[in-house]
Amino acid sequence: MGHMARPARPHRRVAERNPARTRERILAAALKEFAARGFAGSRVDTIARRAVINKRMLYHYFGDKEGLFRAVLRRKIAERQARAENLSGDPVESLAFWFKLSCRDADWVRLLEWEALQSADKKLIDQENRRQLIGRAVNRIRQEQTRGQVSNKFDPRLILLAMRSLAIFPLAFPQLTRLITGLRVSHPHFQKKYAGFLKKFAAAFQPVVDRHKKNDSEN
Amino acid sequence: MGHMARPARPHRRVAERNPARTRERILAAALKEFAARGFAGSRVDTIARRAVINKRMLYHYFGDKEGLFRAVLRRKIAERQARAENLSGDPVESLAFWFKLSCRDADWVRLLEWEALQSADKKLIDQENRRQLIGRAVNRIRQEQTRGQVSNKFDPRLILLAMRSLAIFPLAFPQLTRLITGLRVSHPHFQKKYAGFLKKFAAAFQPVVDRHKKNDSEN
Repeated sequence: MGHMARPARPHRRVAERNPARTRERILAAALKEFAARGFAGSRVDTIARRAVINKRMLYHYFGDKEGLFRAVLRRKIAERQARAENLSGDPVESLAFWFKLSCRDADWVRLLEWEALQSADKKLIDQENRRQLIGRAVNRIRQEQTRGQVSNKFDPRLILLAMRSLAIFPLAFPQLTRLITGLRVSHPHFQKKYAGFLKKFAAAFQPVVDRHKKNDSEN
Repeated sequence: MGHMARPARPHRRVAERNPARTRERILAAALKEFAARGFAGSRVDTIARRAVINKRMLYHYFGDKEGLFRAVLRRKIAERQARAENLSGDPVESLAFWFKLSCRDADWVRLLEWEALQSADKKLIDQENRRQLIGRAVNRIRQEQTRGQVSNKFDPRLILLAMRSLAIFPLAFPQLTRLITGLRVSHPHFQKKYAGFLKKFAAAFQPVVDRHKKNDSEN
């Protein structure tokens, strides 16, 4: 098979034999690079080197840099959807849940932040798919409003925006979190305190009457 | 005076005659450049060219790129403090106020975002001054808690963090605002709707009993 004659390209051969694992390795390397430098600042060369793969092979799998970015984005979105699958629409649960998810997924928050700085006004990568997923999240809030679990005095879209704000902001602005609380956002103590805050604060999204019933029955 | 003999450097002469205006022009050019490209990606050459000033003169005024960034930051912070001077500690007013201020100050939000991506873990530029200002904001919330205007079941630092989240997030992530609401964050209709939402939602920071008194007296 002559593989002793090609010692400089061991990984390419591995890649050809196990395409699924190769794709995974490329996606992981790409996520790291895009999160560190943003789409505009990332280089396919660097990603190929991180993934220990031939650049031609990378293009074979993903087309171009944008195709690769789209694949990374879809993968992250699918992961997050999967984790959120059994989540109820109750804000008391979901607000702290989304915050904890963001804590484990700082790379994702950085991706969004680069996108905000570099291409927020353009057509977004994977825009239609993302819009649909968000539409479903808005519908879940609407259902909770109908069931009386979420206050119907607010526009469900603005409820979603506010919930995302509260869940993501401390991760998106770690320096402000540190200036304000004196703790790093990565510190378990901060994460525990803030998750506890969100659980209490989530009452803000509930109908006022319901909240009082609950308070009464607790006392 | 021989100025006809130096047609290539008219601005340097202007600069020397009116240092205050020159400083202003440099600061304005620097804010634009830092907001567009971040501290790491900005070049003093470009800023000097935007400000139509000799680069040596820029160094004379601000020392180096970091000195210039610090001056820009201090200027923005001072401006924002000045605008907030007569603001009450009442969240119903201040939450919508900080949102509207951020809308007029998208460059400031971008500066913070670049800082988050590029230097959040390092010692921040002008860190002590910023920490002090934030300490004062926390104290104002504490006072409102003592006066019964703000709920004392929350840590005042986390109240400040949550208020900043709600006020800044839509500007920091314009693409998410657009995906979620269907409107651009710069659109007057979005700004009006979201400011209205914040005014209602601010009740979340008030003591529950007080809010009910208010609701009763309104009915």
